[in-house]
Amino acid sequence: MKKMDVIVVGGSAAGLTAAITCRRHYPKKTVLIIRKEKQVMVPCGIPYIFGTLSSPEENIVPDSVLEKNGIELAVTEVTGIDRTKRTLRTENGEEFAYEKLVLATGSVPMIPPIPGADLENVFVVKKDLPHLQKMLDWLNESSNLVIVGGGFIGAEFADECRKNRDIKITIVEMLPRCLMLSYDEEICAIAEQIEREQGIDIRAPEKVEAFLGNGAVKAVKLANGEELKADMVILGIGCAPNARLAEKAELELGSTEGIQVNRYMQTSDDNIFACGDCAEKVSFFDGKPSELKLASTATREARIAGANLFGMSRVNDGVIGVWSTVLADTAFALAGLSVREALEKGYNVVIGQAEGPNRHPGNMPEAANLMVKLVFERGTRIILGGQVVGAKCAGELINTISAGIHEKMTADEVALFAMGTHPALTASPIAYQLTNAAEMAIKAAESC
Amino acid sequence: MKKMDVIVVGGSAAGLTAAITCRRHYPKKTVLIIRKEKQVMVPCGIPYIFGTLSSPEENIVPDSVLEKNGIELAVTEVTGIDRTKRTLRTENGEEFAYEKLVLATGSVPMIPPIPGADLENVFVVKKDLPHLQKMLDWLNESSNLVIVGGGFIGAEFADECRKNRDIKITIVEMLPRCLMLSYDEEICAIAEQIEREQGIDIRAPEKVEAFLGNGAVKAVKLANGEELKADMVILGIGCAPNARLAEKAELELGSTEGIQVNRYMQTSDDNIFACGDCAEKVSFFDGKPSELKLASTATREARIAGANLFGMSRVNDGVIGVWSTVLADTAFALAGLSVREALEKGYNVVIGQAEGPNRHPGNMPEAANLMVKLVFERGTRIILGGQVVGAKCAGELINTISAGIHEKMTADEVALFAMGTHPALTASPIAYQLTNAAEMAIKAAESC
Repeated sequence: MKKMDVIVVGGSAAGLTAAITCRRHYPKKTVLIIRKEKQVMVPCGIPYIFGTLSSPEENIVPDSVLEKNGIELAVTEVTGIDRTKRTLRTENGEEFAYEKLVLATGSVPMIPPIPGADLENVFVVKKDLPHLQKMLDWLNESSNLVIVGGGFIGAEFADECRKNRDIKITIVEMLPRCLMLSYDEEICAIAEQIEREQGIDIRAPEKVEAFLGNGAVKAVKLANGEELKADMVILGIGCAPNARLAEKAELELGSTEGIQVNRYMQTSDDNIFACGDCAEKVSFFDGKPSELKLASTATREARIAGANLFGMSRVNDGVIGVWSTVLADTAFALAGLSVREALEKGYNVVIGQAEGPNRHPGNMPEAANLMVKLVFERGTRIILGGQVVGAKCAGELINTISAGIHEKMTADEVALFAMGTHPALTASPIAYQLTNAAEMAIKAAESC
Repeated sequence: MKKMDVIVVGGSAAGLTAAITCRRHYPKKTVLIIRKEKQVMVPCGIPYIFGTLSSPEENIVPDSVLEKNGIELAVTEVTGIDRTKRTLRTENGEEFAYEKLVLATGSVPMIPPIPGADLENVFVVKKDLPHLQKMLDWLNESSNLVIVGGGFIGAEFADECRKNRDIKITIVEMLPRCLMLSYDEEICAIAEQIEREQGIDIRAPEKVEAFLGNGAVKAVKLANGEELKADMVILGIGCAPNARLAEKAELELGSTEGIQVNRYMQTSDDNIFACGDCAEKVSFFDGKPSELKLASTATREARIAGANLFGMSRVNDGVIGVWSTVLADTAFALAGLSVREALEKGYNVVIGQAEGPNRHPGNMPEAANLMVKLVFERGTRIILGGQVVGAKCAGELINTISAGIHEKMTADEVALFAMGTHPALTASPIAYQLTNAAEMAIKAAESC
């Protein structure tokens, strides 16, 4: 029986980062990752296999990172944990002993309870190379693709599948708008307009009543009675924590069915930690359970779990939630709460917005429009969230907003933010969108 | 005599932002900008007139921003302040009365005490359209350009003047490396290598002994005796606060000869505020006088001054200093202290560095290398500074670091930074350079 100081179950964003973090903080400890996939897909890169990249092989996390960090690897599935003996069993009958265990078992895509969801060419998105290759092969033979769910996965798949292909793509979304669980409605409207300009048909709000076909899907029947031709369906309606192994080992689960963890990312067994999609999460804002599942959040939790394995030094203060995406050439990013979500949570809010080119003067090359919308709690003027639309620098700008949220900066502090600016890199310091959006929020608050 | 609630002297980054901020916070107050330039140049855009843009006219701050914000304008030079009567006199004999006055008179380029510095084609860089047009005309007739000073101005002018021109460019820098007042030496070396690849000759460390010529410069004599052919010289050795008007009005000056201000940006006269290059500055880190002069800092001070005019609500906690630039296609950015500067200030430091592509997987389009170097105080592990080299997203990433510096984040807090990531916009969450540089600093600190 192989004995390790640390075993990590799962080799994607959370597992890999937990293993690397452990080796950085405890260089004398032996660390083994056990994962079931031969090759690990870059999780967020999966939609890009279908357009920008040309195959699943181009979207792999290289195992050289394991060697570089002195991490051992076993490719097999863990079937059970003996918490008393501190051992694991695998599908091929092997046993491993651990001192500390990290569960990073990820999530499983949700399958809607719709008749025909089990037809052959109705696909969920799995982080699995052969499955993705099969999807790509089907896609390349398809003329009519229906995507169920207009969130990030649905929107990104639609935007990628259209590239270099003569294919009719329809998104069916239950909510009034695509991406509506993330952005405010007027920003969703911008995203939808871009999607439509790319020839993507959007049905929202609309429900699927059945997938029709015999063996393979032929059409998607909508609640309004319409039948959409389909020779491929992609389901992008979300995912649930993969907590089966933890449940079998009688670890406690949380209210979103994730593995219950404390602020040190420790499960109900002191020697077992969990992180990433499989772990229960709470909101940074109000401590309530959160269903957010993001690779960035997973790695953050893994940096906490990995550092805490042999001594508690890091604390999880909850999920802020920072997303971004690109549709055609327009970036969309969000940190923290949208206005809609802040209102739903019961906050009294004030909003500020600023827009302009991300270069100065605005006729510099590569200049693109950039809009920043910020939401603050009205009384304290503490920042609750930000949305950025436009130029690709949104991907980093949103992280400045995330830092501001984490540090509970007020609108005045954001307005006085010590930003650097440069003609070829950013907006002008006079018109810098982040500081000016904060100023506009103050102006709005004071004119009430 | 025209009576205004607020008069701002100076219409560049600081003056304009102070006026806009005042109108936002006190919409009932009348605001007048008095400036001597017919048209205001985008200050940081000036080097780009000589390459990327094609004329000074393409680098103008449009006066429409004044109308939009309800700000009046007078183009003339203020020659004196009567602080008792609260009036201003201008060169054409007009008088204006103010309730509150903001001095945003900027800086003047330094001229080195070198023989021949007054020759006709030896240019300082003024924020003045006719002067810049004259420089451009000279440049277009020149075959040999010598730039004195290898800081930001010198490096950017060299990089721009080479574009679409057959011209021999030499930078003469007193310090061992170009950009050495900003970046650590190994980063200056990367910048110099890029400059040399563009055909720019660098002489460092080297001094100019004289500018030779009769009327017009013909050559630059170096301290080593060599004579460089020159039909144009650009001086980029820094600038000094333009505090003449304040001095005449017997306002107190600080130890860097800037107008002394308190933390509210108020001068020694309660009714007169100052901001931008003309105002005395102190470091965010130790409160000591700082000679940093940046447009971004100027607008930050202006947002403080403008909001405080009729009630103190904002406090200046000093200059962090955030710069960025681009040489060829490589961005260089810095926030806070370089390692060299931190050591000079007497800090005990620990350093962390991380590098990799700014997309994930690394074969996504537009992927470019990005290196982040962070410096922390060793005991508290509070972040003191960061340097970023590579992809153009450095321009926004450096602002996340600036936020971290302002909020005194520790290495652990930076490592746990809740960043958002996306394949088409950022590095992977596993390899995110900012968090990983913090992890490497912790590892370095713990392995001592």
